[in-house]
Amino acid sequence: MTSQEARRRLEALGLDDDAVGALHAHFADAERRGKAGHGFSRVAWLETLDFDGDARPARVLAEEGLERWDGSRALGYLVLEDIVRSVLAEPPAHARVVVAERCFPTGALGYWVRRLAEGGLVAALTATSPRRLPHPAGGPPLTGTNPLAIGIPSSDGAPVVADVSMGAVTHGDVLAGRARPDELVPFGGEHSHKAFALAVGLELLVAALAGPEPGAVLVVARPEHDPVPALRELAEGRRLPGEG
Amino acid sequence: MTSQEARRRLEALGLDDDAVGALHAHFADAERRGKAGHGFSRVAWLETLDFDGDARPARVLAEEGLERWDGSRALGYLVLEDIVRSVLAEPPAHARVVVAERCFPTGALGYWVRRLAEGGLVAALTATSPRRLPHPAGGPPLTGTNPLAIGIPSSDGAPVVADVSMGAVTHGDVLAGRARPDELVPFGGEHSHKAFALAVGLELLVAALAGPEPGAVLVVARPEHDPVPALRELAEGRRLPGEG
Repeated sequence: MTSQEARRRLEALGLDDDAVGALHAHFADAERRGKAGHGFSRVAWLETLDFDGDARPARVLAEEGLERWDGSRALGYLVLEDIVRSVLAEPPAHARVVVAERCFPTGALGYWVRRLAEGGLVAALTATSPRRLPHPAGGPPLTGTNPLAIGIPSSDGAPVVADVSMGAVTHGDVLAGRARPDELVPFGGEHSHKAFALAVGLELLVAALAGPEPGAVLVVARPEHDPVPALRELAEGRRLPGEG
Repeated sequence: MTSQEARRRLEALGLDDDAVGALHAHFADAERRGKAGHGFSRVAWLETLDFDGDARPARVLAEEGLERWDGSRALGYLVLEDIVRSVLAEPPAHARVVVAERCFPTGALGYWVRRLAEGGLVAALTATSPRRLPHPAGGPPLTGTNPLAIGIPSSDGAPVVADVSMGAVTHGDVLAGRARPDELVPFGGEHSHKAFALAVGLELLVAALAGPEPGAVLVVARPEHDPVPALRELAEGRRLPGEG
């Protein structure tokens, strides 16, 4: 799907100009980074989802240590878009936890923490999704693929952005026929109990704070130090997470 | 090393009764859970470290959203012990980020989040340590093994506790001769770039907030929901993280 076709079909979903722009920017960024599974192909998938094109998320609690947002029936992308804009407009004095209830789908989480890191903030973000990963011993799916993304600003330019899903393949790979459904298991082979444990921990963290529907939890803080340049030097040119 | 010998040798390190009790309880818990690498054998290792037996950590900033602690020259175990006691004594109204500067060694992180979860709080904790994991493409060590531990309370009894190091083996395994030094790499085999990315993200998260020496970052929050019983049911008796 081309960029122009994606925009046209997003408009046809009843989304307003701002929402179309936010979604298109997310998909275009994924395409540029070679994450085609999070790119324009997602527009055809959005057309199959049940959501309210007019809905926008609402901030329902705003304390210094915690904000709570309700995605209502809006697309999760737009929930995170509004949260990122809000955090950048009013950054925490020190640190803030942001809980997003009813926040699905959330796209490539690295996109959101990168924007926060480009705005000078340290950010860690996780989000749940329909249960797709089984226990390493088999059985029904117990958790989502539950990525964890971490973004760190740097004085030497681009932030470092880690964005790791706990699945050996992505659901997008399965949808696109690039992987078999039985390959969608916790990553790690003989150590898959580790990725499974992370998926369970993140699943329950989000569920305990945001409730039974897929949601997201963001931790954002002002950095006190600038550790990226020294790590880049130590890496001697080897690729760090999130580098092109 | 026996429990009695461990206590005697801890006392000989110049630690007061409270500190000896806290360390002994940590090691005894690790022994009970079959994590011998975090158990009494660590006392011999502590005897080789440079620390101040009289030092106790200090809380240097206390805002609603963030606390900052300085471990000074105390053992990291005692920094986390004081932080856990403090959080349980004065839990956050909603959520709190706790940054611990100069906090090493930190032991089995699951121990700390389990105590917080047993106290009714959701907790996520990570900590850095000397650089031991190289890039998947080789080269010098770039990050610590940087575990992430997540504890979730449950109305049906024991909390779920995930505690995952990013190494394929532990440094303790190498010290004990159970693993070769070249096996201490990011876990995951063909997907080791994922564990490496998590290790880098957590390394920089801690370093950006706590500074260049090994430190720890804890996020603690009051749960709004109780997702563990439903997950236990769905798992049909399969072992969840942290279960005996």
